[in-house]
Amino acid sequence: MLPDLSYPASTEDWRRLAARSLPRFLFDYIDGGASGERTLAANVQDFAALRLRQRVLVDVAEVDTRATLAGQPCALPLALAPVGLAGMAARRGEAQAARAAHAAGVPFTLSTVGICPISEVAAAADAPPWFQLYMLRDRGAVRALLDGAWAAGCRTLVFTVDLPLPGMRLRDIRHGMAASGARPALIRAAQVLARPGWVRDVALRGQPLRFGNLTAQVPGARDLGAFKAWVDAQFDPSVTWQDIDWLRGQWKGRLLLKGILDVHDAQAAVQVGADGASSTAWPRPPPSCPPSPRPWARRPRCWWTAACAAAWMCSRPWPWGRAACSSAVPGCGRWRRRARRACAPCWPSGSASCCWQ
Amino acid sequence: MLPDLSYPASTEDWRRLAARSLPRFLFDYIDGGASGERTLAANVQDFAALRLRQRVLVDVAEVDTRATLAGQPCALPLALAPVGLAGMAARRGEAQAARAAHAAGVPFTLSTVGICPISEVAAAADAPPWFQLYMLRDRGAVRALLDGAWAAGCRTLVFTVDLPLPGMRLRDIRHGMAASGARPALIRAAQVLARPGWVRDVALRGQPLRFGNLTAQVPGARDLGAFKAWVDAQFDPSVTWQDIDWLRGQWKGRLLLKGILDVHDAQAAVQVGADGASSTAWPRPPPSCPPSPRPWARRPRCWWTAACAAAWMCSRPWPWGRAACSSAVPGCGRWRRRARRACAPCWPSGSASCCWQ
Amino acid sequence: MLPDLSYPASTEDWRRLAARSLPRFLFDYIDGGASGERTLAANVQDFAALRLRQRVLVDVAEVDTRATLAGQPCALPLALAPVGLAGMAARRGEAQAARAAHAAGVPFTLSTVGICPISEVAAAADAPPWFQLYMLRDRGAVRALLDGAWAAGCRTLVFTVDLPLPGMRLRDIRHGMAASGARPALIRAAQVLARPGWVRDVALRGQPLRFGNLTAQVPGARDLGAFKAWVDAQFDPSVTWQDIDWLRGQWKGRLLLKGILDVHDAQAAVQVGADGASSTAWPRPPPSCPPSPRPWARRPRCWWTAACAAAWMCSRPWPWGRAACSSAVPGCGRWRRRARRACAPCWPSGSASCCWQ
Amino acid sequence: MLPDLSYPASTEDWRRLAARSLPRFLFDYIDGGASGERTLAANVQDFAALRLRQRVLVDVAEVDTRATLAGQPCALPLALAPVGLAGMAARRGEAQAARAAHAAGVPFTLSTVGICPISEVAAAADAPPWFQLYMLRDRGAVRALLDGAWAAGCRTLVFTVDLPLPGMRLRDIRHGMAASGARPALIRAAQVLARPGWVRDVALRGQPLRFGNLTAQVPGARDLGAFKAWVDAQFDPSVTWQDIDWLRGQWKGRLLLKGILDVHDAQAAVQVGADGASSTAWPRPPPSCPPSPRPWARRPRCWWTAACAAAWMCSRPWPWGRAACSSAVPGCGRWRRRARRACAPCWPSGSASCCWQ
Repeated sequence: MLPDLSYPASTEDWRRLAARSLPRFLFDYIDGGASGERTLAANVQDFAALRLRQRVLVDVAEVDTRATLAGQPCALPLALAPVGLAGMAARRGEAQAARAAHAAGVPFTLSTVGICPISEVAAAADAPPWFQLYMLRDRGAVRALLDGAWAAGCRTLVFTVDLPLPGMRLRDIRHGMAASGARPALIRAAQVLARPGWVRDVALRGQPLRFGNLTAQVPGARDLGAFKAWVDAQFDPSVTWQDIDWLRGQWKGRLLLKGILDVHDAQAAVQVGADGASSTAWPRPPPSCPPSPRPWARRPRCWWTAACAAAWMCSRPWPWGRAACSSAVPGCGRWRRRARRACAPCWPSGSASCCWQ
Repeated sequence: MLPDLSYPASTEDWRRLAARSLPRFLFDYIDGGASGERTLAANVQDFAALRLRQRVLVDVAEVDTRATLAGQPCALPLALAPVGLAGMAARRGEAQAARAAHAAGVPFTLSTVGICPISEVAAAADAPPWFQLYMLRDRGAVRALLDGAWAAGCRTLVFTVDLPLPGMRLRDIRHGMAASGARPALIRAAQVLARPGWVRDVALRGQPLRFGNLTAQVPGARDLGAFKAWVDAQFDPSVTWQDIDWLRGQWKGRLLLKGILDVHDAQAAVQVGADGASSTAWPRPPPSCPPSPRPWARRPRCWWTAACAAAWMCSRPWPWGRAACSSAVPGCGRWRRRARRACAPCWPSGSASCCWQ
Repeated sequence: MLPDLSYPASTEDWRRLAARSLPRFLFDYIDGGASGERTLAANVQDFAALRLRQRVLVDVAEVDTRATLAGQPCALPLALAPVGLAGMAARRGEAQAARAAHAAGVPFTLSTVGICPISEVAAAADAPPWFQLYMLRDRGAVRALLDGAWAAGCRTLVFTVDLPLPGMRLRDIRHGMAASGARPALIRAAQVLARPGWVRDVALRGQPLRFGNLTAQVPGARDLGAFKAWVDAQFDPSVTWQDIDWLRGQWKGRLLLKGILDVHDAQAAVQVGADGASSTAWPRPPPSCPPSPRPWARRPRCWWTAACAAAWMCSRPWPWGRAACSSAVPGCGRWRRRARRACAPCWPSGSASCCWQ
Repeated sequence: MLPDLSYPASTEDWRRLAARSLPRFLFDYIDGGASGERTLAANVQDFAALRLRQRVLVDVAEVDTRATLAGQPCALPLALAPVGLAGMAARRGEAQAARAAHAAGVPFTLSTVGICPISEVAAAADAPPWFQLYMLRDRGAVRALLDGAWAAGCRTLVFTVDLPLPGMRLRDIRHGMAASGARPALIRAAQVLARPGWVRDVALRGQPLRFGNLTAQVPGARDLGAFKAWVDAQFDPSVTWQDIDWLRGQWKGRLLLKGILDVHDAQAAVQVGADGASSTAWPRPPPSCPPSPRPWARRPRCWWTAACAAAWMCSRPWPWGRAACSSAVPGCGRWRRRARRACAPCWPSGSASCCWQ
């Protein structure tokens, strides 16, 4: 039996490689969804159901995919979405991904629960990242994190609003992530020992493995467990639009809300002064909504986020104005080399013809 | 090969565990449907097709899932549906499940053909269960069963109306449940011997294995076969709404009809004085029905029953007024420990926002 | 490994048994369809998509499923459709099936290319069968076959009109049925030798294996190949409605046309004096047809034929008046024993409630 | 285990044979599509969803499938579409396929990047082929190729307009077709060595393996790599309708545009003087198009091209006038023998009845 020499060519290929190289509980953290993962499957299907209108004989010798996202010029209307614990999936994963994003000319978003601190990420990419934050019970900690991000040069805040409680992620329950004692420890130890390459590359040479942005908030924490306990205690299910109002006053930069799925919530986002919004799913208005939210649609730019969505998703004016897409690519060192190749053929016919009208 | 240490996290996981621990004919009794099982599959699909409308930034710090079902306050709008022979699937299964339901604050329904008598179930849970009954040819036996239930404290009768004849359950036919002689005995013996854990736990220590509520009706019966013969002879295909009228006069408590699938039958249930109705399927009006039964919908509360449906089904006002769901969870000793964990995250955004409007 | 002792319970179970006991080319003759078998799959799906409206609390103690098909009283509105070469699938298969049908009180239809002659079939069942015929180039042979059927007591002719040319059955091509020489002979010999039970039961003890109704037409034929060559040469692609007119004059009994799929053809069948029509598929009017053929629908009774369709298909008035269904059950000796059991539960709620209205 | 003696009977069977006899990268060149191959899958599904209206009792003794395509009388309204590198898939593949097409009475289209030069193909079939061309940066080379085709007797030019850039074919990327160095060479060597029959038949006895029509344009080229480099450099993404206008002036014969998918582009093709157009997919107007392009539809005849589409696709007047279908059958020596058998049963009921109206 020959070894598999073939080159990975799609997000699905990269996903299979990740499944082979990561301990199962880390792979499932990135790959899994909540409950029966039906919404996750529906998102993938909705993207797959998109059809581009194909016109021919349009001069595409000079295709310009540049766009401006949150006031920042980009090579593509696409930003890397925040991925928690990316530094557990690859050695100093956030720094690697930020470097690759910068080389490709697209923004990188650092997660609150990233491994690398924002200063390390900003230095690695020679450019400050966007910063993602949840609302914490300790508003002083929120202010401190905002100050730290601003000091590191960050001017775009991606604020997650769809996580008042952690989702019921069944894969995590199966691995015993919510349990304690010998059995879950055994499960995870077996998964880690099955991936010696990961142990060598990430666990040993990717230290320190803690939440880099939260070391000041959790001074005594030494391991991820202590950090996780603090984060879990900080989830605030009582957050409302009034808290966003307060946040708007705290942050002078751009404010994007992440996790808006309903047209009425998008309208509320406009009223509260957000500069944009992003969903984790195809923005399909529910049956009870008015079919066309166009009058409102002109105002803010909205982004879609889809973990691992193929990069070919292009701009589409309906239903929320001209939208861009953002894609979370799990930390991988080879991303930079492939970024241009993967994205360049995405816009074969130019923005004038390769989109729905 | 390491043993599988992972934790079960979904009804599908529990189903697989049950398939491994129960003799096949008992598992198929719970897991199977009639004929080609297409209606069963359609029910699962219909539930899976449900989408919740997701609003964000609603204060969900205090989520109250309490409801009143058949006049009884419950922690959740959910009741355990009757499962026949539950005491064959787990040691004194009905008593275990009633205890777990009581701890979770939801009603438990005891099947006529349960193994534990109603007195044992009421004592185990420190609370009387709901009681499920079929119409029997011997109306004296019906009256005696009603009297026994009333004496045990039961005040809610769940009366099954969709079983004038036993369904053509192909799995049972394959196992020879309808045949006699050496071959079916061989089939079942092989299935029992393949599950020594069940033999030890249920067959030996779960005695007596007979229909606990019917010992007075079938005094000479010693084994399940004799009970089953009596029950089969008691099926009454001539039952009509006039018999429900008679039943209504016999029972002073709440009367819920189980197995209503048609809007016209639901209307008849109202007229005959039933306090509620429940279907075994998603209440989809057939094509020939008027699209909106709203004028009638306000009157009784209706329940859906779906064997093994995930607990996350929430209240939905259409088409039969505000409905609750009931879920049959096959008897399992660990249910109590997990009940809260499984149900708590089901209502993440509160009744004000996490439902269709 | 224990032998599989389980009982067959569905047409799918019987199909698997047939696949294990018949030489592959014979199984595929019964099981296969034309081309990519997409129409076959669509037929199965169309039947599976049927939903019965379920009403409850209807007195079904006395369910009467009797019907009159082509003037003949039947226990069920169902007839066995003609299956060519049934005597190759079971020992004297047509005689066995006719006996089983007679015992179940439903008509049996003998194929022109059956193995047993009509006299043998009539004697076996103590009742004359219906007789199926294709149009042959030799109209004298057609007349002789009609005379033979009439003499045997047959009064209902099922005339196939959808086979002007043999279909492109890919399974037959794969087995080399259309080729000659050593290779196809090798293929079939290997398939026959793999089924010693069939060789013993059918090939040796089911003699003579020739087209029993055609021995007078092909006097010199000794083996099936010679019969098949004659039949292939007799296919008449030039048949039109005028030939049916001629046929109508030749046959004094009931005339049913088999293979009508289009509403306009069904209307033509009425005008030419046919007493009924049957399709091999769900009678779905094509998109271009007027939606409701009701004005015409009142006149003849129409039958659907679906090879191996489950027996539970019930009467449904749309779109061609009150229709009955006919089902082809491949010859099997055990059919009689099971016929009542399989059919009895099909009509659980009586004709008044268990059908679409 | 006996060898598989069964006969191939469908395009899917032939596809499996090809997968077993061709080096993987050559098979994938023919079998694969762009990106996630969703459009490819949608094409197959769209063809499979076609339903023919079945009328019966129509005289089909004399079925005439003759048609005139691009002014050329054909036995069937079907032409072989151009397949690049067909001479790599079979020994002198284009010559073989042209011979088979000529024997079947249908046109053969030679690809620009075919292995056999047009003179060899014309001589093999005793008839000039249609010729397919891309627009090249070097317009002098275009003119030279047109002159060469005209000199070889070709009068129908099939001009591809949907390839301004090579598609992102993931299978090719996996095999390293776009990479250089030892790893891709190793991948391809392993694939070639696994198919000794192909090495013997095609690689050794099918020489010379170069782009036969381009030897004059790339005089120094010795191997396929050098040809491919020249072709890749000649892709011209700046082509517009004005270039088609120029082309129309250069070519006195029939001009068919290949790759039209949009109704507006089809209208432009009419205005620029094209004699026909062909798509690579079912001509489904996009949602934003007017539903009926009938006013325009009368003018040119349009062809559909579908790689490996079954030959049974028949004429269908909607939506682009009376259309014919063309099917790309990968080079196979046995095509001729089977062509009549495969096509004859496609038109069982004559053109008057076997099509949608």
